[in-house]
Amino acid sequence: MPPKKEKTEADLLKEKNQQLQTLMKERFFTNPAFDLYGGKAGLHDLGPVMAPLFHNVIQEWRRHFVFHDNLQEIDATVITPSRVLEVSGHVEKFNDMKIKEKTTGELYRADKLIEELCDKALNPKQPLDPQLKEKYTIMKNEADSMSADQMKATIEELVKVTGDKRQFEDPAPFNLMFSTQIGPTGDDPAYLRPEIAQGMFMNFKACYEELNHRMPFGIAQFGKAFRNEIAPKGGLFRLREFQLAEFEYFYDPQQTTHSNLSLVKDVVVLMLTREMQEKGIEVPLEMTIEQAHTTNNPETGKPYVENQILAYYLGRTQLFLEKVGLRKEKIRFRQHLRKQMAHYARDCWDGEALSLTGWQEIVGIADRSAYDLEAHSRGTNTQLVAKRDLPEPIQKTVLVPVSKVIGQTFKQKAKPVQSYLNSLDEAGVLALKQQIETNQKATITISEGEQIELSPAMLEFKVETVREEDYIPFVVEPSYGISRILFSIIDQNFWTRPSDQNRRVISFPATLAPKQVLIQPLSVKSQKQLEICHSIEASLKHFSRLIDTGGASVGKKYARADEIGMPFGITVDGTSETDNTATLRERDSSQQVRLPITEIPKVLKKLVKGSANWETIVSQYGLVPTAEAKE
Amino acid sequence: MPPKKEKTEADLLKEKNQQLQTLMKERFFTNPAFDLYGGKAGLHDLGPVMAPLFHNVIQEWRRHFVFHDNLQEIDATVITPSRVLEVSGHVEKFNDMKIKEKTTGELYRADKLIEELCDKALNPKQPLDPQLKEKYTIMKNEADSMSADQMKATIEELVKVTGDKRQFEDPAPFNLMFSTQIGPTGDDPAYLRPEIAQGMFMNFKACYEELNHRMPFGIAQFGKAFRNEIAPKGGLFRLREFQLAEFEYFYDPQQTTHSNLSLVKDVVVLMLTREMQEKGIEVPLEMTIEQAHTTNNPETGKPYVENQILAYYLGRTQLFLEKVGLRKEKIRFRQHLRKQMAHYARDCWDGEALSLTGWQEIVGIADRSAYDLEAHSRGTNTQLVAKRDLPEPIQKTVLVPVSKVIGQTFKQKAKPVQSYLNSLDEAGVLALKQQIETNQKATITISEGEQIELSPAMLEFKVETVREEDYIPFVVEPSYGISRILFSIIDQNFWTRPSDQNRRVISFPATLAPKQVLIQPLSVKSQKQLEICHSIEASLKHFSRLIDTGGASVGKKYARADEIGMPFGITVDGTSETDNTATLRERDSSQQVRLPITEIPKVLKKLVKGSANWETIVSQYGLVPTAEAKE
Repeated sequence: MPPKKEKTEADLLKEKNQQLQTLMKERFFTNPAFDLYGGKAGLHDLGPVMAPLFHNVIQEWRRHFVFHDNLQEIDATVITPSRVLEVSGHVEKFNDMKIKEKTTGELYRADKLIEELCDKALNPKQPLDPQLKEKYTIMKNEADSMSADQMKATIEELVKVTGDKRQFEDPAPFNLMFSTQIGPTGDDPAYLRPEIAQGMFMNFKACYEELNHRMPFGIAQFGKAFRNEIAPKGGLFRLREFQLAEFEYFYDPQQTTHSNLSLVKDVVVLMLTREMQEKGIEVPLEMTIEQAHTTNNPETGKPYVENQILAYYLGRTQLFLEKVGLRKEKIRFRQHLRKQMAHYARDCWDGEALSLTGWQEIVGIADRSAYDLEAHSRGTNTQLVAKRDLPEPIQKTVLVPVSKVIGQTFKQKAKPVQSYLNSLDEAGVLALKQQIETNQKATITISEGEQIELSPAMLEFKVETVREEDYIPFVVEPSYGISRILFSIIDQNFWTRPSDQNRRVISFPATLAPKQVLIQPLSVKSQKQLEICHSIEASLKHFSRLIDTGGASVGKKYARADEIGMPFGITVDGTSETDNTATLRERDSSQQVRLPITEIPKVLKKLVKGSANWETIVSQYGLVPTAEAKE
Repeated sequence: MPPKKEKTEADLLKEKNQQLQTLMKERFFTNPAFDLYGGKAGLHDLGPVMAPLFHNVIQEWRRHFVFHDNLQEIDATVITPSRVLEVSGHVEKFNDMKIKEKTTGELYRADKLIEELCDKALNPKQPLDPQLKEKYTIMKNEADSMSADQMKATIEELVKVTGDKRQFEDPAPFNLMFSTQIGPTGDDPAYLRPEIAQGMFMNFKACYEELNHRMPFGIAQFGKAFRNEIAPKGGLFRLREFQLAEFEYFYDPQQTTHSNLSLVKDVVVLMLTREMQEKGIEVPLEMTIEQAHTTNNPETGKPYVENQILAYYLGRTQLFLEKVGLRKEKIRFRQHLRKQMAHYARDCWDGEALSLTGWQEIVGIADRSAYDLEAHSRGTNTQLVAKRDLPEPIQKTVLVPVSKVIGQTFKQKAKPVQSYLNSLDEAGVLALKQQIETNQKATITISEGEQIELSPAMLEFKVETVREEDYIPFVVEPSYGISRILFSIIDQNFWTRPSDQNRRVISFPATLAPKQVLIQPLSVKSQKQLEICHSIEASLKHFSRLIDTGGASVGKKYARADEIGMPFGITVDGTSETDNTATLRERDSSQQVRLPITEIPKVLKKLVKGSANWETIVSQYGLVPTAEAKE
């Protein structure tokens, strides 16, 4: 027999991931959508574990961000008219590069293919030259920011190096939006939103007005977004239909402070700057939020995070991710490379979570500057602006068109003339004034190129004292990939009991667990015990509970409860029948206390609200031996 | 001057509706989506009043139905492959009739056009003959169940009667699903789900297995559905994109009882049966749920609601609608006419709410029988079945194919032979047995028509004792049009103060209000009062609150709070500075009590959780004069 090969860490992670996938399938965490019909890549349904988990995480997100910072919450439509996404740049630029294999006709996403080939090149049979290692690592990191020509050349090189047998056509862009049609006419094209941001830009003005013109402010929403991925292969981390939660924080670019910044100054984050990635450094910097925005990045001579608002939301995001169950050491923030940034972004930090398959992007915190409001202002001839006080009042020449004269002179054309005059900025007004004063007339060009001559009687010029000015707000956009966050929570909280690798546990925080408490009798044959179970259940109607009166053993039932992360379990036994007590068991420790049944609702409430931890309950009631089979 | 015409009730309702629409626009309850771009009919965004209201109503729905009845909660995808909706019948049958006006080219929905013309015919300048009135009323009720030919004839008749000047082409069917494509190939058609039910049928098997084969059970979810309406004109009640919450309650058709029925037996509902509608009767019957399923409808000789499960969910639905703020007397259940029912339904009751524009369908409770599971079983060659115990064990002849022999004989064709043999029901097995015993061989026809000859060595027949049998569960589907429910809540709870018609109020239940409490100082110039306001705000961080330190008067601020239905308001005044008390004001009564600031969180919690009402608080603290300007 050949000697048994030692398992590498990678093998162990792969095994563990396999075990988790099996559990998720067995206990219906999630299923490929339409698997009855063979399924569809990138479409997944959430089952009775993940759907309530989703709702609980969203409620936590709303508390943590929307209520905490008093954001304006909206709910915008998925279907988006084509014109909106032309103006936002998505129709032109929201593409991935696709590439076709010549023999099979299979379509690949070109950057993912490069990453796959880099992984192959990085793990050759012979030890790899350190310079080549660095080269392929950088190649892999930059795969998603290459031009079509670079991609072509890179793939040709990697195919040669790795001896890959596939042959590829040239890469070509593919727009990632699902398209459809509104109404029965067939000439009203639309898309499913590829991000949920545009709905918030559309409502900037209505929110600003509802807030009586108070700045800064945020607009928040969550919901589904849709991306028609070329070949979704990332399992649950790359879906065609997924949940996002985002907000747009609108601010005056002259006022980049955040009033709550001090609340997060001591929050510790792990940071991977742009420059570190360019050098292939993989160990992140550890710093507080205060350090991140006050100490200089030696590579740039500027603070690591220049914008206080970005810094504030990095800190709040870190706290949120920890609150929903991710581990401090398994969260990092990675700055986008310049070339990786979306077409609208000025700076962007990805929040990433370490999963069994590696680091995964789960959050993006982007500085979109005034990109979107500017684009939609231009695209609709609307002023999407806020007002700020001027440091000093100024004198400004304004034009007051004399409507009566204009109306009588131009009749039906009066309206476009008025529109033209109203749209002039101060420079335009001054130019017109000069023309009129010099020539006693002025010529303007209204819509459709028609020239119109104006007389002095049509125009009055006034000098006004102006105390405010218009500006287009900038925006910071924290965007939470909720579907990915859910998978990360499950991934990072999955373990097996050391005593028995088949006993699988998901350690959901008690505050978020989809099912909170199991109730079971020690003996299902005891009518008395069953009655007590039902009366306990009736007292716990505000909890997400499961009563299990089936024939399996207590230990088996607890094992099944552990698999879906139920944090607490109550067992009614012979003693309960005489002294009205029951045992309460905690999932992670398998420890038990015995307590009066009347006190269960109060104790559980404290535990699931997070106002007491298990240790407190143990010190109050004392441990009792567990009724579970030895593990 | 002509004498002032008395306003009719219809005029008053119209005026009131206009006032509500103005309020909803002014305070950003909702906006036409993309109104910057001119808007799109049937697409609406929810603003900062309605988005949180939506989340609160959904949470209540989950508590009332999902937790109460321990339903399995899932979250399925919006994008649905074409094949699934072909099998479900939607591709063929989910149509409305469209009709084109010849001169303008405008497209109408034919049934809505008939309703519009009936309304015109029902309100002629001269008094209407009672027989004609009945005729047009019935016509209007039946508009949505007419065939294309009936529609054509009806429209021709009504156009003549009403003297309408428009000319129409023939009606033609239009499929109401938004279509799209999955992936980059262009040959994978899909639709946006037009209802959310299919996602639950897809997951029937996974849920049944997760529940260890326990029956009956329900699967629940909520989310957006999409219908490409021909010409959405019903304002907020007919959207192209809207929120649904539904569940599918799977049961054994031999066991139509519901264990919780007694919980709702005394709930009173207003019912409009099929037969009443056919006679043009508009005043509903008032009865309890117990009466509804135990007393006979004299027209049919059977109970009004035959199915106990339907009856149970009628009662639960009534309770839910009352809980979210609809008025008992403005809720009714209308049975579908036979011809109105969807292609999958066996019986259906619509929950309807009376709004300022008339009765609106907001809920549908349909008995879909086994339609969907049968269709998907056939469409996928899968057994979507549950098991039930037989009353007596039976003996059954079963076939055990001898795999080894079959494999050796048929090689590559062994698999289709096995599949064929496994798919035989008992009758098929017995027929095969007889053939083999008679002829010492048997001929079967496998896929693609090929004939195969079997020998006795390939087949073993056994007689087994069978205690269970398979059956396809039936399903009752309560479906809640959440978007419509939200608009109905606002509509039914809108009023103006008798003292001043401009003071608009929305009486949201305190438990659901999007914003719960306003905090303001009497004098915004008092630093002390501002400080107290901020400390109160800090103590109320678990409430949805608004602190208003702007310059408007106390009365004006309360009036603004009333407009978005904030149930409570706290004012800090001069007295507060010395004795640490503040006033608490209730929205509907404008009454105020004064109480210690430290007691505010406790009192508010009781009020918004519904564990105390305002009268209790008044009797505890006593009324104080209001600081608001006289109304």
